[in-house]
This record gives sequence, C-alpha cells and structure tokens, in this order.
Amino acid sequence: LTISIGILGATGYTGAELIRLLHSHPEVRITYCSSRQYNGKPISEILEFLKGSYDRELEEFDASAIKKRCDLVFSCLPHGVSMEFIAQITGSVKVVDLSADFRIRDASVYSEWYQKHAHPEMLPKAVYGLCEIYGDEIRHATLVANPGCYPTSVLLPLIPLLKSGMIEQDGIIVDSKSGVSGAGRGLSLNTHICEAGESFSAYKIGHSHRHIPEIEQELTKASGAPVSIEFTPHLIPITRGMLSTIYVSTARSEGELKECLQEFYKEARFVRIIKGLPATKDVRGTNRCLIAMSKGVHSGRATIISVIDNLTKGASGQAVQNMNLMFGLDEAAGLDYIPVFP
Amino acid sequence: LTISIGILGATGYTGAELIRLLHSHPEVRITYCSSRQYNGKPISEILEFLKGSYDRELEEFDASAIKKRCDLVFSCLPHGVSMEFIAQITGSVKVVDLSADFRIRDASVYSEWYQKHAHPEMLPKAVYGLCEIYGDEIRHATLVANPGCYPTSVLLPLIPLLKSGMIEQDGIIVDSKSGVSGAGRGLSLNTHICEAGESFSAYKIGHSHRHIPEIEQELTKASGAPVSIEFTPHLIPITRGMLSTIYVSTARSEGELKECLQEFYKEARFVRIIKGLPATKDVRGTNRCLIAMSKGVHSGRATIISVIDNLTKGASGQAVQNMNLMFGLDEAAGLDYIPVFP
Amino acid sequence: LTISIGILGATGYTGAELIRLLHSHPEVRITYCSSRQYNGKPISEILEFLKGSYDRELEEFDASAIKKRCDLVFSCLPHGVSMEFIAQITGSVKVVDLSADFRIRDASVYSEWYQKHAHPEMLPKAVYGLCEIYGDEIRHATLVANPGCYPTSVLLPLIPLLKSGMIEQDGIIVDSKSGVSGAGRGLSLNTHICEAGESFSAYKIGHSHRHIPEIEQELTKASGAPVSIEFTPHLIPITRGMLSTIYVSTARSEGELKECLQEFYKEARFVRIIKGLPATKDVRGTNRCLIAMSKGVHSGRATIISVIDNLTKGASGQAVQNMNLMFGLDEAAGLDYIPVFP
Amino acid sequence: LTISIGILGATGYTGAELIRLLHSHPEVRITYCSSRQYNGKPISEILEFLKGSYDRELEEFDASAIKKRCDLVFSCLPHGVSMEFIAQITGSVKVVDLSADFRIRDASVYSEWYQKHAHPEMLPKAVYGLCEIYGDEIRHATLVANPGCYPTSVLLPLIPLLKSGMIEQDGIIVDSKSGVSGAGRGLSLNTHICEAGESFSAYKIGHSHRHIPEIEQELTKASGAPVSIEFTPHLIPITRGMLSTIYVSTARSEGELKECLQEFYKEARFVRIIKGLPATKDVRGTNRCLIAMSKGVHSGRATIISVIDNLTKGASGQAVQNMNLMFGLDEAAGLDYIPVFP
Repeated sequence: LTISIGILGATGYTGAELIRLLHSHPEVRITYCSSRQYNGKPISEILEFLKGSYDRELEEFDASAIKKRCDLVFSCLPHGVSMEFIAQITGSVKVVDLSADFRIRDASVYSEWYQKHAHPEMLPKAVYGLCEIYGDEIRHATLVANPGCYPTSVLLPLIPLLKSGMIEQDGIIVDSKSGVSGAGRGLSLNTHICEAGESFSAYKIGHSHRHIPEIEQELTKASGAPVSIEFTPHLIPITRGMLSTIYVSTARSEGELKECLQEFYKEARFVRIIKGLPATKDVRGTNRCLIAMSKGVHSGRATIISVIDNLTKGASGQAVQNMNLMFGLDEAAGLDYIPVFP
Repeated sequence: LTISIGILGATGYTGAELIRLLHSHPEVRITYCSSRQYNGKPISEILEFLKGSYDRELEEFDASAIKKRCDLVFSCLPHGVSMEFIAQITGSVKVVDLSADFRIRDASVYSEWYQKHAHPEMLPKAVYGLCEIYGDEIRHATLVANPGCYPTSVLLPLIPLLKSGMIEQDGIIVDSKSGVSGAGRGLSLNTHICEAGESFSAYKIGHSHRHIPEIEQELTKASGAPVSIEFTPHLIPITRGMLSTIYVSTARSEGELKECLQEFYKEARFVRIIKGLPATKDVRGTNRCLIAMSKGVHSGRATIISVIDNLTKGASGQAVQNMNLMFGLDEAAGLDYIPVFP
Repeated sequence: LTISIGILGATGYTGAELIRLLHSHPEVRITYCSSRQYNGKPISEILEFLKGSYDRELEEFDASAIKKRCDLVFSCLPHGVSMEFIAQITGSVKVVDLSADFRIRDASVYSEWYQKHAHPEMLPKAVYGLCEIYGDEIRHATLVANPGCYPTSVLLPLIPLLKSGMIEQDGIIVDSKSGVSGAGRGLSLNTHICEAGESFSAYKIGHSHRHIPEIEQELTKASGAPVSIEFTPHLIPITRGMLSTIYVSTARSEGELKECLQEFYKEARFVRIIKGLPATKDVRGTNRCLIAMSKGVHSGRATIISVIDNLTKGASGQAVQNMNLMFGLDEAAGLDYIPVFP
Repeated sequence: LTISIGILGATGYTGAELIRLLHSHPEVRITYCSSRQYNGKPISEILEFLKGSYDRELEEFDASAIKKRCDLVFSCLPHGVSMEFIAQITGSVKVVDLSADFRIRDASVYSEWYQKHAHPEMLPKAVYGLCEIYGDEIRHATLVANPGCYPTSVLLPLIPLLKSGMIEQDGIIVDSKSGVSGAGRGLSLNTHICEAGESFSAYKIGHSHRHIPEIEQELTKASGAPVSIEFTPHLIPITRGMLSTIYVSTARSEGELKECLQEFYKEARFVRIIKGLPATKDVRGTNRCLIAMSKGVHSGRATIISVIDNLTKGASGQAVQNMNLMFGLDEAAGLDYIPVFP
C-alpha cells in the first residue's frame, strides 16, 4: 500500500511541515501540490531547503487531476477559500482540512466568527479531527476538520476532566502562549524580527479570538452543559511551540485529576502526563502533547499546563495522524520523532 | 546638591542597571561599590562595557567607610545576606534594599517562605517602596524595601481597583511571564541559551513562588480582607521584560475599571493605562508600567495586562525612583527614557 | 541656545532612534516630523512607545514650513528620494542626510551603484560625516552625508592605519555581520522572525554590496592609491549590532598597529581600542566603536575586529554627533550612554 | 542485521543528537550508555524529552560489558578522557571518537595544542572520518576520528579545490560563525542567555583556536605543500548552525571552481553546491553541507560559503554516517531528513 497524497496551499508553514513529515512516512508519496501564488514553479524554489529532496512543480488547483492522482488531500488553504476547493473534490478523495471551515458544527456560529458559510450542507459529514477523542469516527471519515492549535492544547487536558465530572464547567480560564509561526508566512510588522524579537505581548484580549467558539463547542459537548471560557493568546518570540496555562475550579485532589488523565490517555501514543514542568522545547518538531498540573490543598482551583508544537500536534502532525487513522495505518506512522535538542 | 551613592553587590544585573541609570542622573555620583566575589578588581573588569565610563575598584563591605562616604546605599545582595549588612549601616545612611528581606511585614511569614529573619526589629521602620502607592511614607523613610518584579507588575493595576472596591478579592488569578534576567547572573542549565532559547515554560506551579506572600500582603492591605491568589510564573526567552495577565471577578464595566485606574494614576509619571495591547518592548530599559484591560459585556470577569521591564521598574529603576523621593528630587530624575527601539 | 530640529521620514528605525536620542539631548527640540506614508497621524500612533513622550503630528514635506521652523533637518528618507527633498531646503537650513545620496563624491560612481544622480551640483558642498576623520570640515558644513553603517565599522579602524602606511592597501578582506534592523522596517520574508530567527546567512557575495564604493572611496583617499576590497555582509538574528572582522597585510607588529590606533583616537569620545574581544552587546544603544586586533609573529596578516550599534554610531547616533559638531556643541552631548545590559 | 551501539558520555549535546538520530535508524539499537556524572540514573531524567522514548539507565564505563554488549561505540567524552577509555575497548569493538584525540596524525602537534598524548601508538590505525574524502579507508576502519565541526565546514569545500590545484595554498582566510551548542552543555557566562543572547562576537583571534592544526593538516595533505590559514571563530546567538566564509586566491574562473566541486561531489549524498546563498536554517537538524561561491571578473580572489549543522554534519550526524560506512550500510541510513522549517 502506498497512499497518494495531494497538498493544497503547499508553500506555507503547515504545507512545509506536512512535506517534512510525509518525506519520512513509510506508506505515502506526494503526487500533487498546489499553490495559488506560485503555480508553475518548482516547490523547491519557494522552500529552498527542499531542493534535491523535493522539487515537484506547483500546480493550479484542478479537481479532476486531483481525483485521478490522489487518495487523500490535505488542505492548507485559508478558511473561506478552503471549503470552496474541498467542495469540488470531497466524495471522490479523502480530505483533511487544516482550516477552520469544517470545525464549527453550527453554520451560524461559523458565520458569526468567520464569514458566511458557503457549504453548510457538508458540515454533518465532517468529523472533528482531535485524534485522541474522536478516533473511532475519524477511522470512518472522508472529511476531517483538523483542530486549531490552541483548541488542541486546551481540549486534550480538559475534555477527559469535564467528561468525568472532575472539574466544574464554570470559571475556566485559559492563558495561552504561541510561537510566531502560528501567524503564518504572510508579512506584517507583527512578525518582523525587529518588532517581535526580544519582546512578548498578548495579541487578543477579552472574548475575541476565533478559536474560542471551537474550544467552547467541544468543552460544552464534553461537559453536557454550556461552557464559556476566558481566553488570552500571547506571542512568544520563538518560531514553534505553544503552551497553555489553564485554571479550573474543582473539588477533587491533584492525585484524582492526574489519575483521571493518566487513565484516559494510557493507550495514547502522543499524550503524556508528566511530573515536572514541560517546556515547548521538549516537543519541538514532534506530535507530542505534555501535560502537567498542580492543586494546592486549601484551594478550590487547579492549574494545568499543556505544551505542543503548534505546527505539528497543533496542525500538520495531527493531520498526518488523522490520515493514519483514516487509512487504518499505525497511528504513529511517520510521527515517531525525538525532538531536535538542543 | 550631589548625593553620594554606594552599591552593595554591584556586579549582578540589578547592580549594572543601577550604574547605567545613575550614570545619567543629574544629582548623584557613585562613591562606593562592593562585591563579595570580586573585591579589589575594577568593576569594568567584571562588566566590560563600563570600561572608560566607570572603572572604580570594587571594595569589601566596610560599614565605617560607607558611613563616611555615602548618603544612600542600594543593596543588590541576595536575601538573607542583605539584612546582615544593612543592619550595620542603617540609621547612618539611607538604604534602598532590592532584596526581599524587608518586604514582608510579618517576620514569621518571611521565615516560612525564605529563612529565619535575623532582624525582625528593623521591620517596623522599613517602608514598602512601591512608589505610586507609598510615596508619602517613602519621602520620610530611611529604609526602603524595593518591591519584587512580579509584585510590582501585579500590584500597580490591582491595588487601586481593590481599594475602591471595583473588583472582588476572591478568584484573582495571575499568569506572569518574565525575561531570563530575573533569574540573575548565576549559572544554571535553566539560563543556558541552548536550553532556555527558542523555548517557553512555566517554572513554578501552584502556590509556591516566593513573591506570592508579598503580593498577598499588599492586596490584603488594599482590600481590607484576606486575599489569596493563584500565581504561575513563566520564563520568556528574552533578556528583559515582564508581562502579567491578571483575571479578576467584577460586576463593574470595562469603562468603570479603566476610569478608576486612570483617575488613580493621573499624576503618575511612569504608569499609563493604554487602549491597545502593550508589549514588553514598549518599556524596555525604562521605568514605565503600561496597563491594558478588557471586559466582555456578559462576563463577570475582566482581564488586565500589565508590562514592565523587570530590571527597571521591577528593580533598579524603581530603586532610583525611591531614592528620588527620599531626597525630595523630581521623581523622574534620571529615569525619563524612551525605550531603545527596535 | 535651543536648536529646532526637523526629521524627514521619521517613522522608520533611524527616525525612531533619532527621536530617542534627541529626547535626552540638552540643547534641542523637535519641531517638525514628516512621513510620506502616515502624514496627518500622531507619530505615537505609528511608534506606540512614544505615546505620552512624543505625540507630534506627522506632516507632509513642506519646504517653506521647514525653513521657518527648523535649524537643522535629519533626512531618514531612502536614497533617490532624499536628495530631491534636500535640494529644496539646503542653503536655508543645515542638513544631515542619512541616505547614500551625498556620500559618493563622483556622480558617475553613484549612478553605477544606485541610480542616476539628480543633483550632482550639490556634491561638492557635501561633507562626509565620519566625525572622527572629518571633524574639522563637519564643523563648517551645511550638508553632511552621514556614513553608512558598514563603512563606519570598517573605516574607523582602517583609515588611520592606511594613512600612516602601517598596512598595505592590497588584499584587504572585510567580513561583516549586521543585526536585522539594518534592513529597515519594510516587510520581507528575509525579516520574518520565523525565517531570519535562529538562522545565519550571508546576503551578498562578491563585489556587489552598495557600501563597497563608499568604503573604497575613503580607503583610497586615506591610502593615496586605489584600494579594492573583498566584502561579505551577513545577517545576525538580532535587532541591533554590527561586527566587522577585517584581514589586512602588514609588516608591522601588533604593538605598532595598536599604538597607531591608540594615538590616533586618544582624544576620541566614542572610539576605543580594547584588549579583549568586543561583543555587539557592549555597544548596544550607544555611539561607541570598540576595536580589537591580533597579529601572529610569523604571519604577514593582522586580524582587526570592530563593533558598533548599526542604528547608533552606524546611523542616528553619528548623525547627532554630526549635528553637535555643526553647532559647536560638546561632541558627546546627548550621546553619553552606558549600554542597556544585559 | 541489527547493530548494537554504545554511547560514552551520552548526556551532552552530541550524545543527545546521537540518540535522536539512532532512534530513527533502521539497523541499530542502543544497548549501552555511560555517564561519568549521572551513572545510575535513567538517561530520561537528565534529558527529559527522552522520557517514554528512551529511559535506559546510565552506567559507569565498563570495558568488559561494552565488549560483550556493543558492536560499535561512539565516544562523546572530552579530549584527553576519551583516548583513555577507547584504549580499553578498541580492537574488540569498532569506535567512532567525537573528541579530538585521534584527529591529529602527529602526536607532537597534538601535544602542542591539547595535552601530552597518552596513546600515540594508536594513531596509525585511526582514520580521519571526513566521509566524503576518506570513505574508502573508513569502510575498513575500526577506529574513526570524527572531524571537528569547523574543520568539516572548511575542508569539504577546500580539499577538492586544493587537490586539483584550482586554488593557491597561500592566503587562505577562514571566517567562521557557530551556534552556541558548539560550546557544549557546560555552564559559563558565555552561554548565559542574557549575555550571549542578542549579541555577536568573535571568541578567538589570531592563530589560536584548536581546530587550526586539524584544518591545516588536512589542507596540507590535499595540497601537497604546507598550508597555513587565518581563522577567526565567532559566536552566533542561536543554538545550532555553522557558516564559514572562506577567502581564497585563485586564477580560475567562478565557473571552473564550481564545476570542480560539482564533479567531485556528484555522488555525494549530503554535499551540494548551490546557486543562491545558504542559511544555517536550511540544514538545521540534517547531515547536509551546502556550498556557494562567487568570484569577480577582475579579482584574483574567490569567496566560498559553506553551512552545516554543527551538531549533525559537524558531529553526531557525521558520526552516524561513519558508522554506516564501517558496517557497509547505505551511507544515508537514518540521516535522510528534511530540516525542521520554520
């Protein structure tokens, strides 16, 4: 078995990360890469470090070519654009969409936070691709909505705790910090090294970041009752890495909370509950999620910390994990990396 | 008027920052610098960028020499050591102590978090040097306990809000991020550029960081009722800068909260409530504190963000501000800088 | 005496650095700031850290307003544009031009490396503003061509050695490294933190960088015979700082070379020959140039290292130093800083 | 075939990099790891990111255990120590030594630059492990001296050019820049993020760095006549990456020089001559070496730039490549990575 893979929007950071991961994957070959901006050029002209390893020419989007040449397509296109292209190929090929277009179950919520949804009829068949939670559905899915990076870092620790009633659904506060690659390869003063370097800031405040409805949708589903969170995303002057510090109300002990998570993730290949405090460097370039927590004796609050690489478990790594599940492969195929250290 | 200044422990980061600030101060000259480790060497041998500007020889601690040659002494010594030395000179010269030794009013609390207090009898005369709050006491003080960096970033926004009853004293959550210089010039794997660089982590979790009792003492005083906080400090891979994201419960509107702070700080030289979101780069090398906030309409919680330079307003800059107050100088003398940008 | 200052193109990095330095200068006030892109807005809206310190409205270029309101104008405009604007005001106000437009004495050389020179008739009255070399001419100049950053770092060590015949004019190799702020505030993938961060590269190779004719012009003048150099500029993933490693042929000893430089710069306020090896951090935010050198006993080659801050001694600091000379002020007025360390 | 591997000194940066690379190597398993400092502890306690992937207990050095359990040993011990341990196992197991102990053919030269050589009798059987040059000897070697990082970056471009007489052996100047991991995991102010971060400096000047005799030995061998170089190593504030800018005298054209290298490396798996200018980021975490060059028409000098990852091709990657050759495996086994980008 060799799976033929297409990548839409291959020259951005998530596209580059997919190519890196798929290059070492034992069961796939890339047969199609599109770029709206650079079509006709070899991809190694845009991503120079691919020269010699991967020089395929970038093509225009062509639904019939894709259907002929691909078993699965990863879409790294921006939201809004992504659903238009996916609508032309879904049904014929499997799709993992890295945009937000199929993450929100309710088209009206999507419209409120993003833009009018062009294909609400496709939403029912899309599966939310948080692998450790929705593995069974993903195995039979043809369209997977790959989760956002912040949601991945928040949902992995919280869903098991909410599902089992170990924490309260009220008063959840999420303070997240992300490397700059989360902002993409586009140009802006915010990503200029002279402005973002040697600095730290929050970039959204209040209930305003677009990942909030995605997080609340899944927490609400896990809890069974409406969950509303406080969420503040910050920019770390590093390329890759994401750390979320999460404050929750609970009557349970630290030991009970940890045991709940350890039990839930005992078979998980990429999620681990650790004793010490995780650093983003511990997961860089890998598909791992590390979780730590602490609860004082007298306090009714626990602090939970999770780290992922925003481009790997937070994007392209989880996308490959979804592909593995969709084709019945070993879930960790092509993903069993040790971080590049130091 | 020219004030003669001594610096104890002059070769660490707060000592170096004091020398930088005092170098451009119109009313002072440095007449004494001590170092336990390097005495006998010119300070510019240890801090090479001082060569040509400041080559004074480092001396051993000598109480009688200090009394003869100094009007005011800054102590940059570690806690525990600092109080022993200060005990020998206080009364004869004014002292600003940058260690934690005189910040905690209650010697038993100090003992619980640090070590047994060797000079509890001196605590009553020490004034907590948060300039914008205790300005009147500082003007008449002979011993000032310069606040910690985290406490400065947390107390400046919270004290006015608690004093005026605008926020609740329960449920305060402080998520703080600091540049690595806060860890000092000592050597450890945690400050090795290959381990701390390109990474981000929390380094304490739960109710365990030593700045907690200092913060709670002052919040309790402002509130009139016991305040207990959640506090998580993180390490940013930058040299200077501190940002605290603070979550509070309140029934008031965003406008009311902002107005409260704006009114409180309308005469303040270094504290400013801003519309946008502050970055640590906006205050680097300056004595400024920038505060932003947001509150959703339906939420009972507000998010407050404050930034300072941990070595300036969080340490040596505030120490100079305290000195200015203690000698009746313009509060901003030697501190009116624009940040080095970019 | 208070000098009225105008800044053309005030919102880029050299403009921001000028405002920082002039803010603490005892003899000046800024009375005019122009921006082609942002006119009509307060400058503190573009450079947010100026809020409260400096909120002047950005104006369109207006020659007659400038003549009325300014004693001296700094032009931070790009080459080509700068000379057009300067031509309208020179004669009435003194000008320090930070662009390359008046650095090259020979209009045909300028045309070869930049573009056709629009005002060759102004070249004879322009003085090359390398303060330590051309101080006497600068004192009487009305139009000063502020040197490029690379030329400043190369010429300060080499001109005295060539003038005195201590080194050969052949075989000079210059390997320079610059912080990213040298590339300006414009947007490009080369300055995206995810591409420039955690990386190092040369960005020109061979005899191709535009600072080469400027360096060769001045070395030829110092030597009395044509000098042609090898020059390779590299990008350091830091904001500020420039280091040039220069390899020269010489029959003289290390001691003779050092003595030559020490004698030449014995009265210089900002240039210092040091024993150890300088780091860019030692000069960050200051107008200093540090020079080190070494020569093996058996080798006919010496290695010289110089460091400056590319935005200060390499641009805006030297521009202020030029202004000081043009107005008969203390050469170091507003420039006597200790670096922000760490 | 599965090769059993031992690693001496496994907890430093080259040890960690070996474990990362061997983890994905199809033909090996690690059966022994020693540490002088941490023996008895699981290696994942010292290198926490290994937890779950690699938890083997660190052992004391034990020659007889090694002989029983290992087919090949990598020594990541410091020079001086390394040869003592290797002397006890060589003959029974194959050894790749990452220290300098067996790189210098002449024991008296070693003694001059390092310390007295304890095992000069072993030097004749050691092969210098620059794989692209000494592949044939390495295939039959039992003791390989893995080259230094600087030598690797310098020798790969220069040896073919010297061998073919395309460049002169006189006047070679090497200006090298290295990431901080080259300084190892030991603690020093030079690697403190607050001192090394946001800065750039040379750290040796003149003919003083210990990699010089290694470079000169190999260049002399390639040239057939004594070669003496100028060499200046600099510190880049990044973790990984090395770039050498090399200036050589030559009468040949740029085309001839490039053709010479392209021909020499046409079968090489990891060395590539490129058109553009390479960045260290293009090779991070990989075993690649990228080479660029330029020569002006009128100049008798060419500029050559090479980049490697100092920990991979400059250390552990090349060590694995040597192992592959020593066991007749595919030279690129376990080394075919695309860089982690961005």
